[in-house]
Amino acid sequence: MAAHDAVEVIAAKRDKRALTDSQIDWVIDAYTHGEVADEQMSALAMAILLNGMNRREISRWTNAMIDSGERMDFSSLSRPTADKHSTGGVGDKITLPLAPLVAACGVAVPQLSGRGLGHTGGTLDKLESIPGWQASLSNEAMLSQLEDVGAVICAAGTGLAPADKKLYALRDVTGTVEAIPLIASSIMSKKIAEGTGALVLDVKVGTGAFMKDLETARELASTMVALGNDAGVHTVALLTEMSTPLGRTAGNALEVRESVEVLEGGGPVDVVELTIALAREMLAGAGRDDVDPADVLASGGAMDAWRRMISAQGGDPSASLPTARETHVVNAPSTGVLTRLDAMAVGMAAWRLGAGRAKQGAAVQAGAGVEWHARPGDPVLEGGPLMTLHTDEPERFERALEALEGGFDVRADGSSYEPTPIVLDRVS
Amino acid sequence: MAAHDAVEVIAAKRDKRALTDSQIDWVIDAYTHGEVADEQMSALAMAILLNGMNRREISRWTNAMIDSGERMDFSSLSRPTADKHSTGGVGDKITLPLAPLVAACGVAVPQLSGRGLGHTGGTLDKLESIPGWQASLSNEAMLSQLEDVGAVICAAGTGLAPADKKLYALRDVTGTVEAIPLIASSIMSKKIAEGTGALVLDVKVGTGAFMKDLETARELASTMVALGNDAGVHTVALLTEMSTPLGRTAGNALEVRESVEVLEGGGPVDVVELTIALAREMLAGAGRDDVDPADVLASGGAMDAWRRMISAQGGDPSASLPTARETHVVNAPSTGVLTRLDAMAVGMAAWRLGAGRAKQGAAVQAGAGVEWHARPGDPVLEGGPLMTLHTDEPERFERALEALEGGFDVRADGSSYEPTPIVLDRVS
Repeated sequence: MAAHDAVEVIAAKRDKRALTDSQIDWVIDAYTHGEVADEQMSALAMAILLNGMNRREISRWTNAMIDSGERMDFSSLSRPTADKHSTGGVGDKITLPLAPLVAACGVAVPQLSGRGLGHTGGTLDKLESIPGWQASLSNEAMLSQLEDVGAVICAAGTGLAPADKKLYALRDVTGTVEAIPLIASSIMSKKIAEGTGALVLDVKVGTGAFMKDLETARELASTMVALGNDAGVHTVALLTEMSTPLGRTAGNALEVRESVEVLEGGGPVDVVELTIALAREMLAGAGRDDVDPADVLASGGAMDAWRRMISAQGGDPSASLPTARETHVVNAPSTGVLTRLDAMAVGMAAWRLGAGRAKQGAAVQAGAGVEWHARPGDPVLEGGPLMTLHTDEPERFERALEALEGGFDVRADGSSYEPTPIVLDRVS
Repeated sequence: MAAHDAVEVIAAKRDKRALTDSQIDWVIDAYTHGEVADEQMSALAMAILLNGMNRREISRWTNAMIDSGERMDFSSLSRPTADKHSTGGVGDKITLPLAPLVAACGVAVPQLSGRGLGHTGGTLDKLESIPGWQASLSNEAMLSQLEDVGAVICAAGTGLAPADKKLYALRDVTGTVEAIPLIASSIMSKKIAEGTGALVLDVKVGTGAFMKDLETARELASTMVALGNDAGVHTVALLTEMSTPLGRTAGNALEVRESVEVLEGGGPVDVVELTIALAREMLAGAGRDDVDPADVLASGGAMDAWRRMISAQGGDPSASLPTARETHVVNAPSTGVLTRLDAMAVGMAAWRLGAGRAKQGAAVQAGAGVEWHARPGDPVLEGGPLMTLHTDEPERFERALEALEGGFDVRADGSSYEPTPIVLDRVS
């Protein structure tokens, strides 16, 4: 590998030049091995955030991160594989019903997930509220569960794209998370290294999402779709609504309960709609568009797959889920229609109630979170219950209530409410 | 002091907002005390480089760096004080004759200097080629020498603007040196903390300077002049030519020898001209424009002050200066006129011969450097000596010669040569 110098690479991007393939390969490798220091990489990340990267640079950067670690290989499986990645939202429990649903349709789902940080929840945190369930699996156990059950949701091993792990932690503390080339390469390096055959990206847009506007979300989506397809992974993206939280709950056990309702054939309509839409894309990407996931969900096949998936990782799918020790009801301030429920406000409240963590490695409360009894468009009665807050530590209610201030509108005249579709756009 | 968060401050500048006074005070203080990490400060430095700072921000940033350490106070001296700062050039030995000249005119010169890094030399490195001379002085010894001799050139103590020391070392390895707000605040925080009453800035412009064009140099100069005057330091700047190296030598002992020639009433005309011009500005700034430094130089008074200044710091002004063990002569390739001698090429050659250091803390060779026997505009004869390279390590000649390739032009027809004035502009 050609030798470069960190300052040379930083200065090139600072001066708005495209980095060469050789510079990119070197800087990722040297950073992984500690030869490029954190303070050098953070300066480079800021220069990338402000001056951008072209498609060739982003693709090379992604490949260099993949090459920093191992690649998984599912070619020995008897079924095709498909995975989903969400950029993160509030109440986004979709992975939980989606993975067993797609598995029940005959496509294997190797979901390597993360934990929550900040106001968005983490899939592993949610599943860990199920008694006995274990997030860590060896590569061999993962492969065998994929063959037997068809779905695995587990923690990504440390061998996959270690450069990304190091860079992500650095970006988090240096104000450089918001760089589209770095977000795209971070997500796609892990998904490509994971070895899935097809990938559906759920790019969230709105107040509770990382991307606040459709244009930026579309740019991120098309960057990732190109990266995936260039790497031979059949990739499409849905841009989906995240100004309103998904479903009726945000929190760990609360969201598992809601997911089980969906698998039982009930649950909130938006969660069902998005689960089916993403399942259709995953099945199409894996060449199985002959199967209708709505039928499989209705048949109970997805629920069976869920039970086997949870049991295979030590969890008891029939066990009672933990509940918080304390609850506090927020009443509707007037009679009318709930015209707005802000995803960021709900996400912050759930986080402050103990559902999320303020720093990496901290514990979360299984039972904490927010449950809302009305969704935008629903009528409410003055003094009736609008939301229930759950936590083990009642001293957390005050700051959660502060987060909810200004986070919803009740209007006597509901005509100002305009329903928004869940799926806003599709990028392929 | 109000508490802030590093990511909040970085994100504000990243998003092109002006930092508040409170954010600036906090981030400098927290960085000095290690609460803001290097990787956070380097991301902020890159954001400042790319998104700029307004005058209020630069002024506050400078004051926060001054407040990170001690301030010196020369008000007890019987004479006014004046200092000079050069942004760094090749063959720039002006401080050496200038400080004793101004002292001999009745104005005290407290010169806190640095060491060289890269292709530009450091004043302390040059003076350390004088046997016995010591760069480190206590504040008390400095004050007493200023009163007795009138001039001190010494290393800045660690108590002065420690935030700047830490930040400068960080910028050096993170590609963030080239930020005008950070250059201006770095220079001015040290000079204001140093406590000089008047300050003349020698802002170099050209291929061998940090600022390559007049417009950028003028922006830096006017930023620094405003900072100085706002802080009560009478500050002016001269923009001076640095596409051609100054004088006839670049190297440590070589430049001391040339400076002594100037003090003896000889020396290269450009060095004499710039020394007098800067002395006039320093004297005017200190309220002593009644004295003509050209007369004082001719009278030998400056030479007396030099001898006393060197002796006071343990140096022997009569001792022989070290010479390099090996020399190599570069001959003129043809007969004609030397129409161009590139400052960067000469500076790089001197650096590679051992006059400068590649990394902080490394040793330099006292005798190493480049001597040029013709200056632009001078006639040269084919095969006659054009330059002499000096080093203790003959294996260094090859890379020094590479640096000089394309670094000069000899033309049969000298009419293409256009002399450039030394002083290009004045900013007050």
